[in-house]
Amino acid sequence: MKHLHLLPLALVIAAVGGCQGPANSQRDQIRQEQFTLYPIGKVVKEAGKTLIVLDKKYQPGLLGLEKHSYVTVVYWFDRNDTPERRAILQVHPRGDRNNPLTGVFATHSPVRPNLIAITNCDIISIKENVIEVKDIDAFDGSPVLDLKGDFFRFYRPANQQ
Amino acid sequence: MKHLHLLPLALVIAAVGGCQGPANSQRDQIRQEQFTLYPIGKVVKEAGKTLIVLDKKYQPGLLGLEKHSYVTVVYWFDRNDTPERRAILQVHPRGDRNNPLTGVFATHSPVRPNLIAITNCDIISIKENVIEVKDIDAFDGSPVLDLKGDFFRFYRPANQQ
Repeated sequence: MKHLHLLPLALVIAAVGGCQGPANSQRDQIRQEQFTLYPIGKVVKEAGKTLIVLDKKYQPGLLGLEKHSYVTVVYWFDRNDTPERRAILQVHPRGDRNNPLTGVFATHSPVRPNLIAITNCDIISIKENVIEVKDIDAFDGSPVLDLKGDFFRFYRPANQQ
Repeated sequence: MKHLHLLPLALVIAAVGGCQGPANSQRDQIRQEQFTLYPIGKVVKEAGKTLIVLDKKYQPGLLGLEKHSYVTVVYWFDRNDTPERRAILQVHPRGDRNNPLTGVFATHSPVRPNLIAITNCDIISIKENVIEVKDIDAFDGSPVLDLKGDFFRFYRPANQQ
């Protein structure tokens, strides 16, 4: 028991021992933080139409999007938002066991640690807070997190005056 | 004061009155929920190299990514994670006032309600939990949320047996 005060030092040595040196040890430290997403809208499929319906308060964020032919839609795979599914790191892509077991980061699988989905949609029309798109590979009701227009088509870099 | 008990009813009527009918009223209701992101790694720029360093526990998720020439990197604009900046809905793209005021959803601005950044990076090498990429438009230390390989190049759809 008399060496118990050395335990913290031993733990530090153990922690560093597994790494390739102090530089990599620091490099490999990932902060255990977290960030919060607030949905800006949702996917609505009704009467044969596919809509991105934004919360009214976000409507000013659409200004200018009517000039774009498509929009990148970021949504949340909300049906998989359980600790168990978010811990899955390897899948058979497309659920086909003929496809070899693959890391989720090499795929677009809907199970992954952060359930971010990214897809491009052709814009049909924009009316107030509602964007009609041609189609989307998301379920009705999926929470929408972000939209990104086809930026580089419209704006010049700040250094090209 | 005697009609004060009618105030809740009046508020409901006022709220419904602005909509285009019960169908749209329901359609426009966005659930006030939230989702949690846990960084899987971070951007590291050191000695002229650009690295995506994953938390060791996510390393199995990289299996197969070595077959891809590029990877879509999703990261967090963490320097803008304040309620004030996340409330900005219109910007002059690229901070250039010659570009007209534009909704953030028509741009790739680093201020937006959900601070999700999406960029494609050419892969140079993958060693254990570290991906060396050619370049990335992110600050050193940016939290990485997700990686997506060039899926459609490698896997057949499940309905094409």
